[in-house]
Amino acid sequence: MFTLYHYQLCPSSRFIRILLDEFKIEHITQLENYWKPQDEFLLINPAGHLPVLIDNSNFPIIGFNACVEYIRDMDLKPNIFPDDYRKKAEIYRLYHWFDTLFKKEVLDPIIYEKVFSRVIENLTPNSINLRNGMQNLVFHIRYLEHLLKDKDFLVLDTITSCDFFAAANLSVLDYLGLLNLDDYPKLKVWYFKLKSRPSFKNILKDYIVGLTPHENYKLLDI
Amino acid sequence: MFTLYHYQLCPSSRFIRILLDEFKIEHITQLENYWKPQDEFLLINPAGHLPVLIDNSNFPIIGFNACVEYIRDMDLKPNIFPDDYRKKAEIYRLYHWFDTLFKKEVLDPIIYEKVFSRVIENLTPNSINLRNGMQNLVFHIRYLEHLLKDKDFLVLDTITSCDFFAAANLSVLDYLGLLNLDDYPKLKVWYFKLKSRPSFKNILKDYIVGLTPHENYKLLDI
Repeated sequence: MFTLYHYQLCPSSRFIRILLDEFKIEHITQLENYWKPQDEFLLINPAGHLPVLIDNSNFPIIGFNACVEYIRDMDLKPNIFPDDYRKKAEIYRLYHWFDTLFKKEVLDPIIYEKVFSRVIENLTPNSINLRNGMQNLVFHIRYLEHLLKDKDFLVLDTITSCDFFAAANLSVLDYLGLLNLDDYPKLKVWYFKLKSRPSFKNILKDYIVGLTPHENYKLLDI
Repeated sequence: MFTLYHYQLCPSSRFIRILLDEFKIEHITQLENYWKPQDEFLLINPAGHLPVLIDNSNFPIIGFNACVEYIRDMDLKPNIFPDDYRKKAEIYRLYHWFDTLFKKEVLDPIIYEKVFSRVIENLTPNSINLRNGMQNLVFHIRYLEHLLKDKDFLVLDTITSCDFFAAANLSVLDYLGLLNLDDYPKLKVWYFKLKSRPSFKNILKDYIVGLTPHENYKLLDI
Protein backbone atom coordinates (compact mmCIF):
# COMPACT_ATOMS: atom_id res chain seq x y z
CA MET A 1 0.00 0.00 0.00
CA PHE A 2 1.34 3.43 -1.00
CA THR A 3 0.77 6.60 0.98
CA LEU A 4 0.46 9.98 -0.69
CA TYR A 5 1.02 13.18 1.26
CA HIS A 6 -1.10 15.81 -0.43
CA TYR A 7 -3.20 18.93 -0.06
CA GLN A 8 -6.54 19.20 -1.85
CA LEU A 9 -5.78 22.45 -3.65
CA CYS A 10 -2.20 21.55 -4.58
CA PRO A 11 -2.45 20.79 -8.33
CA SER A 12 0.68 18.62 -8.34
CA SER A 13 -0.80 16.48 -5.55
CA ARG A 14 -4.03 16.18 -7.52
CA PHE A 15 -2.05 15.12 -10.57
CA ILE A 16 -0.41 12.24 -8.68
CA ARG A 17 -3.72 11.23 -7.06
CA ILE A 18 -5.22 11.01 -10.54
CA LEU A 19 -2.30 8.96 -11.89
CA LEU A 20 -2.51 6.56 -8.94
CA ASP A 21 -6.21 6.07 -9.59
CA GLU A 22 -5.74 5.93 -13.35
CA PHE A 23 -3.39 2.96 -12.92
CA LYS A 24 -5.33 1.52 -9.99
CA ILE A 25 -2.32 1.72 -7.68
CA GLU A 26 -3.67 1.13 -4.18
CA HIS A 27 -2.88 3.97 -1.83
CA ILE A 28 -4.06 5.98 1.12
CA THR A 29 -3.81 9.74 1.31
CA GLN A 30 -2.40 11.83 4.12
CA LEU A 31 -3.39 15.49 4.27
CA GLU A 32 -0.59 18.00 4.80
CA ASN A 33 -1.13 21.75 5.05
CA TYR A 34 1.85 22.75 2.96
CA TRP A 35 1.96 26.33 4.18
CA LYS A 36 2.56 25.04 7.71
CA PRO A 37 4.25 21.65 7.32
CA GLN A 38 4.38 19.39 10.35
CA ASP A 39 7.73 18.32 11.79
CA GLU A 40 7.05 14.71 10.87
CA PHE A 41 6.57 15.73 7.24
CA LEU A 42 9.69 17.90 7.21
CA LEU A 43 11.73 14.89 8.29
CA ILE A 44 10.60 13.17 5.10
CA ASN A 45 10.91 16.24 2.87
CA PRO A 46 13.02 19.04 4.35
CA ALA A 47 11.97 21.30 1.47
CA GLY A 48 8.37 20.99 2.68
CA HIS A 49 6.64 20.82 -0.70
CA LEU A 50 4.02 18.37 -1.96
CA PRO A 51 3.34 15.73 -3.16
CA VAL A 52 5.36 13.00 -1.47
CA LEU A 53 4.61 9.38 -2.29
CA ILE A 54 5.74 6.65 0.12
CA ASP A 55 6.10 3.38 -1.73
CA ASN A 56 5.63 -0.21 -0.56
CA SER A 57 9.18 -0.38 0.77
CA ASN A 58 8.61 2.83 2.75
CA PHE A 59 10.81 4.84 0.40
CA PRO A 60 9.75 8.50 -0.06
CA ILE A 61 9.41 9.79 -3.62
CA ILE A 62 9.52 13.55 -3.32
CA GLY A 63 7.95 16.02 -5.72
CA PHE A 64 5.63 15.44 -8.66
CA ASN A 65 8.42 14.93 -11.18
CA ALA A 66 9.91 12.11 -9.14
CA CYS A 67 6.44 10.58 -8.60
CA VAL A 68 5.62 10.73 -12.32
CA GLU A 69 8.90 9.07 -13.28
CA TYR A 70 8.37 6.41 -10.62
CA ILE A 71 4.90 5.62 -11.96
CA ARG A 72 6.18 5.77 -15.54
CA ASP A 73 8.85 3.19 -14.68
CA MET A 74 6.14 0.82 -13.40
CA ASP A 75 5.23 0.44 -17.07
CA LEU A 76 1.50 0.02 -16.52
CA LYS A 77 -1.29 0.12 -19.09
CA PRO A 78 -2.61 2.21 -20.73
CA ASN A 79 0.63 3.94 -21.63
CA ILE A 80 0.10 7.67 -21.22
CA PHE A 81 3.82 8.49 -21.49
CA PRO A 82 4.84 8.79 -25.15
CA ASP A 83 8.37 7.73 -26.05
CA ASP A 84 8.76 9.98 -29.09
CA TYR A 85 11.31 12.62 -28.15
CA ARG A 86 9.26 15.48 -29.58
CA LYS A 87 6.19 14.49 -27.60
CA LYS A 88 8.24 13.99 -24.46
CA ALA A 89 9.77 17.44 -24.89
CA GLU A 90 6.30 18.91 -25.35
CA ILE A 91 5.10 17.21 -22.15
CA TYR A 92 8.07 18.52 -20.16
CA ARG A 93 7.49 21.98 -21.62
CA LEU A 94 3.88 21.93 -20.46
CA TYR A 95 4.77 20.48 -17.04
CA HIS A 96 7.01 23.50 -16.61
CA TRP A 97 4.31 25.79 -17.96
CA PHE A 98 1.85 24.72 -15.29
CA ASP A 99 4.31 24.21 -12.47
CA THR A 100 5.89 27.63 -12.93
CA LEU A 101 4.00 30.08 -15.12
CA PHE A 102 0.40 29.08 -14.40
CA LYS A 103 1.23 28.71 -10.71
CA LYS A 104 2.86 32.11 -10.48
CA GLU A 105 0.45 34.06 -12.66
CA VAL A 106 -2.85 32.38 -11.82
CA LEU A 107 -2.99 29.84 -8.99
CA ASP A 108 -0.74 31.44 -6.40
CA PRO A 109 -2.44 34.85 -6.38
CA ILE A 110 -5.93 33.33 -6.48
CA ILE A 111 -5.28 30.75 -3.76
CA TYR A 112 -3.56 33.32 -1.62
CA GLU A 113 -6.56 35.62 -1.72
CA LYS A 114 -9.39 33.09 -1.85
CA VAL A 115 -8.07 30.40 0.47
CA PHE A 116 -5.37 31.70 2.75
CA SER A 117 -7.49 34.67 3.74
CA ARG A 118 -9.95 32.16 5.21
CA VAL A 119 -7.70 29.53 6.69
CA ILE A 120 -4.94 31.78 7.97
CA GLU A 121 -5.81 34.47 10.46
CA ASN A 122 -5.15 38.18 10.17
CA LEU A 123 -4.86 38.22 6.42
CA THR A 124 -6.76 40.90 4.56
CA PRO A 125 -7.73 39.74 1.06
CA ASN A 126 -6.40 41.94 -1.71
CA SER A 127 -8.91 42.13 -4.55
CA ILE A 128 -6.32 43.52 -6.99
CA ASN A 129 -4.24 40.31 -6.73
CA LEU A 130 -7.33 38.23 -7.27
CA ARG A 131 -8.36 40.30 -10.29
CA ASN A 132 -4.86 40.02 -11.77
CA GLY A 133 -4.93 36.24 -11.32
CA MET A 134 -8.31 36.03 -13.05
CA GLN A 135 -7.12 38.26 -15.90
CA ASN A 136 -4.02 36.12 -16.38
CA LEU A 137 -6.23 33.04 -16.41
CA VAL A 138 -7.88 34.25 -19.63
CA PHE A 139 -4.53 34.26 -21.40
CA HIS A 140 -3.74 30.73 -20.21
CA ILE A 141 -7.17 29.37 -21.16
CA ARG A 142 -6.83 30.88 -24.64
CA TYR A 143 -3.45 29.23 -24.98
CA LEU A 144 -4.86 25.82 -24.00
CA GLU A 145 -7.72 26.26 -26.48
CA HIS A 146 -5.09 27.04 -29.11
CA LEU A 147 -3.18 23.83 -28.26
CA LEU A 148 -6.36 21.84 -28.89
CA LYS A 149 -6.90 23.48 -32.27
CA ASP A 150 -5.82 20.48 -34.32
CA LYS A 151 -5.94 17.58 -31.85
CA ASP A 152 -8.20 16.11 -29.20
CA PHE A 153 -5.73 16.28 -26.33
CA LEU A 154 -2.94 18.68 -25.46
CA VAL A 155 -0.04 16.74 -26.94
CA LEU A 156 -1.57 14.02 -29.12
CA ASP A 157 -4.97 12.83 -30.31
CA THR A 158 -4.87 10.38 -27.42
CA ILE A 159 -4.56 11.17 -23.74
CA THR A 160 -1.11 11.68 -22.17
CA SER A 161 0.08 12.40 -18.63
CA CYS A 162 0.16 16.07 -19.59
CA ASP A 163 -3.63 16.20 -19.93
CA PHE A 164 -3.98 14.95 -16.39
CA PHE A 165 -1.61 17.59 -15.06
CA ALA A 166 -3.39 20.37 -16.93
CA ALA A 167 -6.82 19.15 -15.81
CA ALA A 168 -5.55 18.85 -12.21
CA ASN A 169 -4.55 22.51 -12.37
CA LEU A 170 -7.87 23.64 -13.83
CA SER A 171 -9.81 21.52 -11.35
CA VAL A 172 -8.45 23.61 -8.48
CA LEU A 173 -10.10 26.66 -10.02
CA ASP A 174 -13.19 24.57 -10.70
CA TYR A 175 -13.41 23.72 -6.99
CA LEU A 176 -13.33 27.42 -6.20
CA GLY A 177 -16.01 28.16 -8.83
CA LEU A 178 -13.60 30.23 -10.94
CA LEU A 179 -13.49 28.12 -14.09
CA ASN A 180 -15.78 29.20 -16.87
CA LEU A 181 -15.06 27.57 -20.23
CA ASP A 182 -18.23 28.63 -22.04
CA ASP A 183 -16.29 30.62 -24.65
CA TYR A 184 -13.76 27.86 -25.27
CA PRO A 185 -15.61 24.93 -26.85
CA LYS A 186 -12.65 22.61 -27.47
CA LEU A 187 -11.19 23.11 -24.02
CA LYS A 188 -14.59 22.62 -22.45
CA VAL A 189 -15.10 19.27 -24.19
CA TRP A 190 -11.55 18.28 -23.24
CA TYR A 191 -12.00 19.25 -19.59
CA PHE A 192 -15.29 17.38 -19.18
CA LYS A 193 -13.79 14.35 -20.87
CA LEU A 194 -11.02 14.36 -18.27
CA LYS A 195 -13.36 15.12 -15.41
CA SER A 196 -15.61 12.19 -16.34
CA ARG A 197 -12.85 9.61 -16.03
CA PRO A 198 -13.03 7.26 -13.04
CA SER A 199 -9.59 8.51 -11.96
CA PHE A 200 -11.17 11.92 -11.29
CA LYS A 201 -13.80 10.56 -8.94
CA ASN A 202 -11.84 11.00 -5.73
CA ILE A 203 -10.79 14.53 -6.68
CA LEU A 204 -14.44 15.43 -7.14
CA LYS A 205 -15.22 14.16 -3.63
CA ASP A 206 -12.80 16.69 -2.09
CA TYR A 207 -14.22 18.81 0.63
CA ILE A 208 -12.18 21.37 2.53
CA VAL A 209 -13.57 22.41 5.89
CA GLY A 210 -14.61 26.06 5.74
CA LEU A 211 -14.25 26.16 1.96
CA THR A 212 -17.02 24.16 0.35
CA PRO A 213 -16.66 23.30 -3.34
CA HIS A 214 -18.61 25.36 -5.85
CA GLU A 215 -21.97 23.88 -6.86
CA ASN A 216 -20.73 23.21 -10.41
CA TYR A 217 -17.66 21.33 -9.23
CA LYS A 218 -19.23 17.90 -9.47
CA LEU A 219 -20.99 18.54 -12.80
CA LEU A 220 -19.94 16.07 -15.45
CA ASP A 221 -22.08 17.41 -18.29
CA ILE A 222 -21.19 20.30 -20.49
CA MET B 1 24.93 21.35 -34.82
CA PHE B 2 22.73 22.18 -31.84
CA THR B 3 21.92 25.71 -30.70
CA LEU B 4 21.38 26.56 -27.05
CA TYR B 5 19.52 29.70 -26.04
CA HIS B 6 20.92 30.68 -22.65
CA TYR B 7 21.84 33.46 -20.27
CA GLN B 8 25.14 33.36 -18.38
CA LEU B 9 23.64 33.69 -14.90
CA CYS B 10 20.73 31.31 -15.50
CA PRO B 11 21.77 28.16 -13.59
CA SER B 12 19.55 25.87 -15.67
CA SER B 13 21.20 27.17 -18.85
CA ARG B 14 24.62 26.57 -17.29
CA PHE B 15 23.56 23.04 -16.41
CA ILE B 16 22.69 22.23 -20.02
CA ARG B 17 25.83 23.91 -21.33
CA ILE B 18 27.85 21.68 -18.98
CA LEU B 19 25.98 18.53 -20.07
CA LEU B 20 26.51 19.38 -23.76
CA ASP B 21 30.22 19.81 -23.12
CA GLU B 22 30.39 16.77 -20.84
CA PHE B 23 29.10 14.59 -23.69
CA LYS B 24 30.92 16.56 -26.38
CA ILE B 25 27.70 17.42 -28.20
CA GLU B 26 28.61 20.10 -30.71
CA HIS B 27 26.60 23.27 -30.26
CA ILE B 28 26.62 27.00 -30.53
CA THR B 29 25.16 29.28 -27.89
CA GLN B 30 22.75 32.14 -28.39
CA LEU B 31 22.47 34.72 -25.62
CA GLU B 32 18.96 35.68 -24.51
CA ASN B 33 18.24 38.26 -21.82
CA TYR B 34 15.44 36.31 -20.14
CA TRP B 35 13.98 39.30 -18.31
CA LYS B 36 13.36 40.95 -21.67
CA PRO B 37 12.90 38.14 -24.18
CA GLN B 38 13.05 39.02 -27.86
CA ASP B 39 10.03 38.39 -30.08
CA GLU B 40 11.97 35.82 -32.08
CA PHE B 41 12.62 33.87 -28.88
CA LEU B 42 9.01 34.09 -27.71
CA LEU B 43 7.92 32.50 -30.97
CA ILE B 44 10.01 29.47 -29.98
CA ASN B 45 9.07 29.51 -26.29
CA PRO B 46 5.97 31.59 -25.47
CA ALA B 47 6.67 31.10 -21.75
CA GLY B 48 9.94 32.98 -22.25
CA HIS B 49 12.13 30.92 -19.92
CA LEU B 50 15.54 29.40 -20.56
CA PRO B 51 17.21 27.15 -21.60
CA VAL B 52 15.96 26.17 -25.05
CA LEU B 53 17.94 23.68 -27.08
CA ILE B 54 17.41 23.50 -30.85
CA ASP B 55 18.40 20.09 -32.13
CA ASN B 56 19.81 19.02 -35.49
CA SER B 57 16.36 18.73 -37.01
CA ASN B 58 15.55 22.29 -35.84
CA PHE B 59 13.20 21.02 -33.13
CA PRO B 60 13.09 23.17 -29.97
CA ILE B 61 13.52 21.39 -26.62
CA ILE B 62 12.18 23.78 -24.04
CA GLY B 63 13.22 23.95 -20.40
CA PHE B 64 16.02 22.18 -18.55
CA ASN B 65 13.95 19.09 -17.72
CA ALA B 66 13.14 18.47 -21.37
CA CYS B 67 16.79 19.10 -22.35
CA VAL B 68 18.09 16.69 -19.69
CA GLU B 69 15.70 13.94 -20.78
CA TYR B 70 16.63 14.54 -24.41
CA ILE B 71 20.34 14.20 -23.59
CA ARG B 72 19.64 11.20 -21.35
CA ASP B 73 17.85 9.47 -24.22
CA MET B 74 20.95 9.92 -26.41
CA ASP B 75 22.48 7.26 -24.16
CA LEU B 76 26.02 8.63 -24.28
CA LYS B 77 28.97 7.67 -22.11
CA PRO B 78 29.79 8.09 -19.28
CA ASN B 79 26.33 7.41 -17.88
CA ILE B 80 25.57 10.07 -15.30
CA PHE B 81 21.86 9.16 -15.09
CA PRO B 82 21.36 6.28 -12.62
CA ASP B 83 18.55 3.84 -13.36
CA ASP B 84 17.90 2.78 -9.76
CA TYR B 85 14.52 4.23 -8.79
CA ARG B 86 15.74 5.50 -5.42
CA LYS B 87 18.64 7.36 -6.99
CA LYS B 88 16.41 8.73 -9.72
CA ALA B 89 13.94 9.96 -7.11
CA GLU B 90 16.77 11.60 -5.20
CA ILE B 91 17.96 13.35 -8.35
CA TYR B 92 14.46 14.65 -9.14
CA ARG B 93 14.11 15.78 -5.53
CA LEU B 94 17.32 17.77 -5.77
CA TYR B 95 16.45 19.19 -9.21
CA HIS B 96 13.32 20.55 -7.61
CA TRP B 97 15.30 21.76 -4.61
CA PHE B 98 17.56 23.91 -6.77
CA ASP B 99 15.00 24.90 -9.37
CA THR B 100 12.47 26.08 -6.77
CA LEU B 101 13.78 26.50 -3.22
CA PHE B 102 17.36 27.60 -3.90
CA LYS B 103 16.14 29.86 -6.70
CA LYS B 104 13.49 31.51 -4.58
CA GLU B 105 15.46 31.82 -1.34
CA VAL B 106 18.93 32.51 -2.64
CA LEU B 107 19.46 33.16 -6.34
CA ASP B 108 16.46 35.29 -7.21
CA PRO B 109 16.93 37.87 -4.41
CA ILE B 110 20.70 38.02 -4.96
CA ILE B 111 20.53 38.31 -8.74
CA TYR B 112 17.75 40.85 -8.50
CA GLU B 113 19.83 43.10 -6.29
CA LYS B 114 23.31 42.44 -7.65
CA VAL B 115 22.59 42.15 -11.34
CA PHE B 116 19.30 43.74 -12.28
CA SER B 117 20.14 46.89 -10.41
CA ARG B 118 23.02 47.32 -12.87
CA VAL B 119 21.55 46.16 -16.12
CA ILE B 120 18.03 47.55 -15.70
CA GLU B 121 17.59 51.24 -15.20
CA ASN B 122 15.83 52.99 -12.34
CA LEU B 123 16.12 50.12 -9.91
CA THR B 124 17.33 50.95 -6.42
CA PRO B 125 19.14 47.98 -4.85
CA ASN B 126 17.62 46.79 -1.60
CA SER B 127 20.34 45.61 0.78
CA ILE B 128 17.85 43.77 3.00
CA ASN B 129 16.90 41.41 0.14
CA LEU B 130 20.55 40.79 -0.60
CA ARG B 131 21.30 40.09 3.07
CA ASN B 132 18.34 37.69 3.30
CA GLY B 133 19.56 35.83 0.22
CA MET B 134 23.04 35.51 1.71
CA GLN B 135 21.65 34.31 5.03
CA ASN B 136 19.51 31.70 3.29
CA LEU B 137 22.57 30.59 1.34
CA VAL B 138 24.23 29.46 4.62
CA PHE B 139 21.35 27.04 5.25
CA HIS B 140 21.58 25.59 1.75
CA ILE B 141 25.36 25.20 1.88
CA ARG B 142 25.10 23.38 5.22
CA TYR B 143 22.51 21.07 3.70
CA LEU B 144 24.77 20.26 0.74
CA GLU B 145 27.69 19.61 3.11
CA HIS B 146 25.37 17.26 5.01
CA LEU B 147 24.49 15.38 1.79
CA LEU B 148 28.21 14.78 1.20
CA LYS B 149 28.72 13.40 4.71
CA ASP B 150 28.98 9.76 3.65
CA LYS B 151 29.62 9.94 -0.08
CA ASP B 152 31.81 11.78 -2.57
CA PHE B 153 29.01 13.21 -4.69
CA LEU B 154 25.50 14.37 -3.90
CA VAL B 155 23.63 11.19 -4.82
CA LEU B 156 26.28 8.47 -5.18
CA ASP B 157 30.01 7.98 -4.78
CA THR B 158 30.27 8.67 -8.50
CA ILE B 159 29.17 11.76 -10.36
CA THR B 160 25.56 12.11 -11.53
CA SER B 161 23.66 14.77 -13.47
CA CYS B 162 22.56 16.18 -10.13
CA ASP B 163 26.11 17.24 -9.25
CA PHE B 164 26.30 19.24 -12.44
CA PHE B 165 23.04 21.02 -11.70
CA ALA B 166 24.10 21.83 -8.14
CA ALA B 167 27.51 23.05 -9.28
CA ALA B 168 25.89 25.13 -12.03
CA ASN B 169 23.79 26.85 -9.36
CA LEU B 170 26.75 27.50 -7.06
CA SER B 171 28.87 28.72 -9.96
CA VAL B 172 26.49 31.64 -10.49
CA LEU B 173 27.29 32.83 -6.97
CA ASP B 174 30.95 32.10 -7.61
CA TYR B 175 30.87 34.43 -10.63
CA LEU B 176 29.49 37.16 -8.42
CA GLY B 177 32.16 36.50 -5.73
CA LEU B 178 29.54 35.39 -3.18
CA LEU B 179 30.57 31.77 -2.74
CA ASN B 180 32.80 31.06 0.25
CA LEU B 181 33.14 27.37 1.11
CA ASP B 182 36.05 27.68 3.56
CA ASP B 183 34.01 26.28 6.46
CA TYR B 184 32.61 23.38 4.41
CA PRO B 185 35.55 21.09 3.56
CA LYS B 186 33.62 18.31 1.79
CA LEU B 187 31.56 20.70 -0.30
CA LYS B 188 34.67 22.68 -1.17
CA VAL B 189 36.49 19.59 -2.45
CA TRP B 190 33.35 18.55 -4.33
CA TYR B 191 32.90 21.98 -5.94
CA PHE B 192 36.51 22.25 -7.10
CA LYS B 193 36.35 18.73 -8.48
CA LEU B 194 33.36 19.77 -10.57
CA LYS B 195 34.86 23.10 -11.52
CA SER B 196 38.05 21.41 -12.75
CA ARG B 197 36.26 19.24 -15.29
CA PRO B 198 36.74 20.13 -18.97
CA SER B 199 32.96 20.56 -19.26
CA PHE B 200 33.23 23.57 -16.93
CA LYS B 201 35.78 25.37 -19.09
CA ASN B 202 33.32 27.37 -21.15
CA ILE B 203 31.35 28.40 -18.05
CA LEU B 204 34.54 29.77 -16.54
CA LYS B 205 35.15 31.87 -19.64
CA ASP B 206 31.85 33.71 -19.16
CA TYR B 207 32.08 37.46 -19.14
CA ILE B 208 29.04 39.71 -18.78
CA VAL B 209 29.51 43.27 -19.99
CA GLY B 210 29.30 45.63 -17.03
CA LEU B 211 29.54 42.79 -14.54
CA THR B 212 33.00 41.30 -14.56
CA PRO B 213 33.49 37.93 -12.84
CA HIS B 214 35.03 37.90 -9.37
CA GLU B 215 38.81 37.40 -9.33
CA ASN B 216 38.40 33.95 -7.70
CA TYR B 217 35.95 32.72 -10.32
CA LYS B 218 38.57 31.03 -12.48
CA LEU B 219 40.51 29.53 -9.57
CA LEU B 220 40.72 25.75 -9.81
CA ASP B 221 42.71 25.11 -6.64
CA ILE B 222 41.28 24.89 -3.17
